[in-house]
Amino acid sequence: MIVLFTDFGLSGPYTGQVSAVLQQTAPGIPVIQLFADAPSGLPKPSAYLLAAYAAWFPAGTVFLCVVDPGVGGERRALIAEADGRLYVGPDNGLLEIILRRAAGPKVWEIVWRPGSLSASFHGRDLFAPVAARLARGEPASAMAHAVVPMAFPDWPDDLAEIVYIDHYGNALTGLRGECVPETARLRAGGHTLAPARTFSAALPGKAFWYVNSNGLAEVAVNAGRADQALGLRIGSPVEVLG
Amino acid sequence: MIVLFTDFGLSGPYTGQVSAVLQQTAPGIPVIQLFADAPSGLPKPSAYLLAAYAAWFPAGTVFLCVVDPGVGGERRALIAEADGRLYVGPDNGLLEIILRRAAGPKVWEIVWRPGSLSASFHGRDLFAPVAARLARGEPASAMAHAVVPMAFPDWPDDLAEIVYIDHYGNALTGLRGECVPETARLRAGGHTLAPARTFSAALPGKAFWYVNSNGLAEVAVNAGRADQALGLRIGSPVEVLG
Amino acid sequence: MIVLFTDFGLSGPYTGQVSAVLQQTAPGIPVIQLFADAPSGLPKPSAYLLAAYAAWFPAGTVFLCVVDPGVGGERRALIAEADGRLYVGPDNGLLEIILRRAAGPKVWEIVWRPGSLSASFHGRDLFAPVAARLARGEPASAMAHAVVPMAFPDWPDDLAEIVYIDHYGNALTGLRGECVPETARLRAGGHTLAPARTFSAALPGKAFWYVNSNGLAEVAVNAGRADQALGLRIGSPVEVLG
Repeated sequence: MIVLFTDFGLSGPYTGQVSAVLQQTAPGIPVIQLFADAPSGLPKPSAYLLAAYAAWFPAGTVFLCVVDPGVGGERRALIAEADGRLYVGPDNGLLEIILRRAAGPKVWEIVWRPGSLSASFHGRDLFAPVAARLARGEPASAMAHAVVPMAFPDWPDDLAEIVYIDHYGNALTGLRGECVPETARLRAGGHTLAPARTFSAALPGKAFWYVNSNGLAEVAVNAGRADQALGLRIGSPVEVLG
Repeated sequence: MIVLFTDFGLSGPYTGQVSAVLQQTAPGIPVIQLFADAPSGLPKPSAYLLAAYAAWFPAGTVFLCVVDPGVGGERRALIAEADGRLYVGPDNGLLEIILRRAAGPKVWEIVWRPGSLSASFHGRDLFAPVAARLARGEPASAMAHAVVPMAFPDWPDDLAEIVYIDHYGNALTGLRGECVPETARLRAGGHTLAPARTFSAALPGKAFWYVNSNGLAEVAVNAGRADQALGLRIGSPVEVLG
Repeated sequence: MIVLFTDFGLSGPYTGQVSAVLQQTAPGIPVIQLFADAPSGLPKPSAYLLAAYAAWFPAGTVFLCVVDPGVGGERRALIAEADGRLYVGPDNGLLEIILRRAAGPKVWEIVWRPGSLSASFHGRDLFAPVAARLARGEPASAMAHAVVPMAFPDWPDDLAEIVYIDHYGNALTGLRGECVPETARLRAGGHTLAPARTFSAALPGKAFWYVNSNGLAEVAVNAGRADQALGLRIGSPVEVLG
């Protein structure tokens, strides 16, 4: 299975062209669109989001990860193997949290190049063909050589910020639920939020926080939009109150 | 074929995770995204929309239906068989109109439970695996026992409200075209609308109503957006004028 | 491979119903969503966009092209063969630029009709079944007879207008990059824009133009939205300054 984690957006030609490359290079291998709306141009919050959601997929899954504001510049292109899953993406921190949480991850720099490489769309021209070859069973070493990726030592293990606003207006933090005491209150957007186990356990219109189905602490409003009610956006700080 | 009818939105991880479960549990069975933007958190208008669009699909189709504001609460999870099609979804009225219009429908409560069931994402953890098993040919009785679903006797057979605004700004009502006299005028958003057979039969900028390609009375503006021109939203009342 | 180029939008039932028809009529043939958000109801800018993006696909690809404001009126339905690719769509100019740039294109009028043809959704009822049959290998002549399509002699070979705004706010012109001198400046939205090779070659916040990965001149802002910064929308004029 090939899983897409990008900021391409659903509209427009980007996801379609990438899907066409995957289909032609690895026919018959299912392609799952996980996020097409990862934080646009922002590898840091995307890294925490990716780490939380990738963990749900089985070993052997290949992730095509493109949040790549530096495309066409000097940044390297990577393959990573972490906890039995494979990742293809830019060396800009997007894979940092995946790698940090894995036992014995391996990283390669992609040296393979396609016949034609555009300056602005490596997702289609470089990352997609490499992901398709990995999904077909080609070893990373056939396309890449071992490398030490860029380090981001100042990034925390869990990010006390909003990293994603979903379709319902729920605001996902970069905090794993297991790192927040069950009875803690969260402070976000100037409001103090109590925990709830489910949406229906909170009063309609009431903001609360809970651990979502992928293990992240998430701020929500029952029958409402947390982003609007609390003025939250990607990057808004969150504080854990004892 | 498995058809998705949800309010998950196209963006975000929800549809992708559900698709991954379907793909893994029922490999090779095509998954069609029908609506990812059913009326968010609103089972009632969604029920009329689902009934109109499901009827277009062939017998044997499995519908995964998730408009589920009560997830994590006490509401039951259902399988229904109606007119040869199978439905999986919450017992909150979402299947009410399907069942009411069918000859001899059957309903089961899902008692099967996955190894791991999140409190907030039964679409992924419960409904999707059940839909995949039905699509693979497992009988409903292997996962569920016969039950009488919740009744919604005060819901009309046709809903004189806007139930969906589409990408073009067209406003779909919950009225089947066959229940509205061909020459009737509709009253919506403070305007009185004459019928037209097609968009190009109406003057540009002119609001009209017509019976859409799935049999619902729909309010539209040729070369314009009916939602904006008439101030319509989901839930806006519609009146049939003799 | 069947490629969708439509203004259906991603939300709503249109793409899903078309996909269901393709799946049932041509099972196993991959369907790629290229654009679901082609300029809504505007065949002219769509024609330049389609020509630029179709060229990237291999010979044998079947394109299902629906930007069809005249649906239900008198416009004809076409099959076209151009440079080894097949196109199905309305005779309203949508295929004009494809045909003009091809060597020896052929055009047929579709005379085949489905058992049931709605007045408003030929994409689902007429174009999709025809595209699926072509993808299965049926010849155009089995469903259509040779015809001369409508001519649009006043349309230029390259369109000095914005034809698409993408997810990032980048504004694509209808000008092929090969027709714009590499060092030319572009005038758009009252601003004069210098060329850049890549996003990262421009200063953050700075507007520039470049030749995108499908060969169109595109106006962009590094780490910003060109549409908002320059007030651009589909149809905004662009001028090439020596």
